[in-house]
Amino acid sequence: MMRMLEPIAGADLVRPAAVLPLLDFAGVAVFAATGALAASRAKHDVITFAFFAAVTGMGGGTLRDLLIGAPVFWVQDWVYVAVCLVVAVGFWLLGSRPWRFRALLWLDAVGLAAYGVMGAAKAASYNVAPLICIVMGVLTACFGGIVRDVLAHQPSILLRRELNITAALASAGVFVGLKALAVPTWPAVAVGLAAGFMLRAGALKWGWSLPACPSFISRR
Amino acid sequence: MMRMLEPIAGADLVRPAAVLPLLDFAGVAVFAATGALAASRAKHDVITFAFFAAVTGMGGGTLRDLLIGAPVFWVQDWVYVAVCLVVAVGFWLLGSRPWRFRALLWLDAVGLAAYGVMGAAKAASYNVAPLICIVMGVLTACFGGIVRDVLAHQPSILLRRELNITAALASAGVFVGLKALAVPTWPAVAVGLAAGFMLRAGALKWGWSLPACPSFISRR
Amino acid sequence: MMRMLEPIAGADLVRPAAVLPLLDFAGVAVFAATGALAASRAKHDVITFAFFAAVTGMGGGTLRDLLIGAPVFWVQDWVYVAVCLVVAVGFWLLGSRPWRFRALLWLDAVGLAAYGVMGAAKAASYNVAPLICIVMGVLTACFGGIVRDVLAHQPSILLRRELNITAALASAGVFVGLKALAVPTWPAVAVGLAAGFMLRAGALKWGWSLPACPSFISRR
Repeated sequence: MMRMLEPIAGADLVRPAAVLPLLDFAGVAVFAATGALAASRAKHDVITFAFFAAVTGMGGGTLRDLLIGAPVFWVQDWVYVAVCLVVAVGFWLLGSRPWRFRALLWLDAVGLAAYGVMGAAKAASYNVAPLICIVMGVLTACFGGIVRDVLAHQPSILLRRELNITAALASAGVFVGLKALAVPTWPAVAVGLAAGFMLRAGALKWGWSLPACPSFISRR
Repeated sequence: MMRMLEPIAGADLVRPAAVLPLLDFAGVAVFAATGALAASRAKHDVITFAFFAAVTGMGGGTLRDLLIGAPVFWVQDWVYVAVCLVVAVGFWLLGSRPWRFRALLWLDAVGLAAYGVMGAAKAASYNVAPLICIVMGVLTACFGGIVRDVLAHQPSILLRRELNITAALASAGVFVGLKALAVPTWPAVAVGLAAGFMLRAGALKWGWSLPACPSFISRR
Repeated sequence: MMRMLEPIAGADLVRPAAVLPLLDFAGVAVFAATGALAASRAKHDVITFAFFAAVTGMGGGTLRDLLIGAPVFWVQDWVYVAVCLVVAVGFWLLGSRPWRFRALLWLDAVGLAAYGVMGAAKAASYNVAPLICIVMGVLTACFGGIVRDVLAHQPSILLRRELNITAALASAGVFVGLKALAVPTWPAVAVGLAAGFMLRAGALKWGWSLPACPSFISRR
């Protein structure tokens, strides 16, 4: 394996990795791990582990890139696929252990917040309107998990009220809002990450959720 | 929120909105409403309402734009997303009422016919072959609803015999056929709309459906 | 129906059909047939047959083309859609017969191997890294069937341990590996096809499968 593609002009716009390289790979790895865990609930072979890891780890960013017209990040740089494969093989070798599900929920919270910010940042680098940047942040953070759940025949995170999407929305929204107020990139990233992570952590720790229906109107 | 993108050259080709602007937004709103209704069957928070509204309202056009290589319409113009959000918040505030399901089936019939024609028209503006234009009309009209049903774990409209796809096919097919016969755009649009709407209305009112299998061959 | 698009410059890169034209159409037809068969298990109308045939026959190649930034093959050349329609109408007219399911499993094995090789070859013609070419081969061969199963509410091939993905992986991997070793195209294609087909045939005939978990580590 070697990189056959020379970096194209403007490649640092193409890859949010240029902003947050370690966090980017960590995000792929964390989401890939949740995909591998989904595969580990049933007894699957290593190929299926790899498939779930790749779909969950890279699905959201793939959709974002297609929508904003960017070259798809992992097609440009094979290291992302390699990270997913390593994670998948690792989880397959180790088998599933109950404590790991809990640990991963917390890593997943970090991933949600990081991808919410990075998805919005990449969209912004393509001159997309602020509202759409926020949408891209949410899609980047949530789409991989949605596809994972559909493929594994599990209830979608969409249908669970655990602030998954809300946390991604908070991260992306805070980041885009602060940038619109001319806040420099690094503080905007940091506050965006904190906002999303805290919301999700609150959901995990104290069961925070949004109201299903405004009670003052509907009483069913 | 403000539009950060200047209209690109040839933007009136890119947006069928230039042909039927009000109908276009109405179509997004109607489909977004069916998405919000799907969310309202279970008790979801407003974020999930918004997600379902956006996927259902814009999913079909998104797929069409990706396939024909057009810039994705709602990434170019954030008003579409705003329409979906308004619809989602409205339905979430109002809660679900049974009569509304019936009313929406009829609005949905209008949307199917309109999107069938508009999807085909946009594809035609990208110099796609007539058969493919018809396929794009069908995808534009039906794909959002298919994804909505998959995500909501409901039986797909694909598996219900209620002429959903057939109505979109009639609208797109009649429009493309009339254009191929050099009929001017407005009459072709009108007849296409009428054809699709009447088929779907017949299915709703009198239970029209296509035969499952030709009885003269198979007798199971 | 007539082709409205002149072949664009470099079109022979765009279409792997230039390498293996008959095999390409045969692949679409075989996968379209498995889609039509999925529709035939329930009693569907001819439109639903066509939808399933098209999604299964062309879904994988569509995803590949979107990911590598190629014009989508069937949007460029309507003959692929026509092949799917002919297959769908044929199966709808004939109804389902049990023996056909068995016959199709074998044709499907040919299709998996052929698409694994062709998907990788097309990606390679777009200067994609070898690892990513292999991923594209797998996606081309498997994605249509995955979507078919999701839409038909059947257990995904992902969740069945029958070496579907593994066979596609073998075909794509062997082809890419041999090309990397400077083996000429035709022998590389032939060996790649044989590798994938034999794996899948072994799964069908003798129930070959990959181990679910390495028994020396996990004993659950």
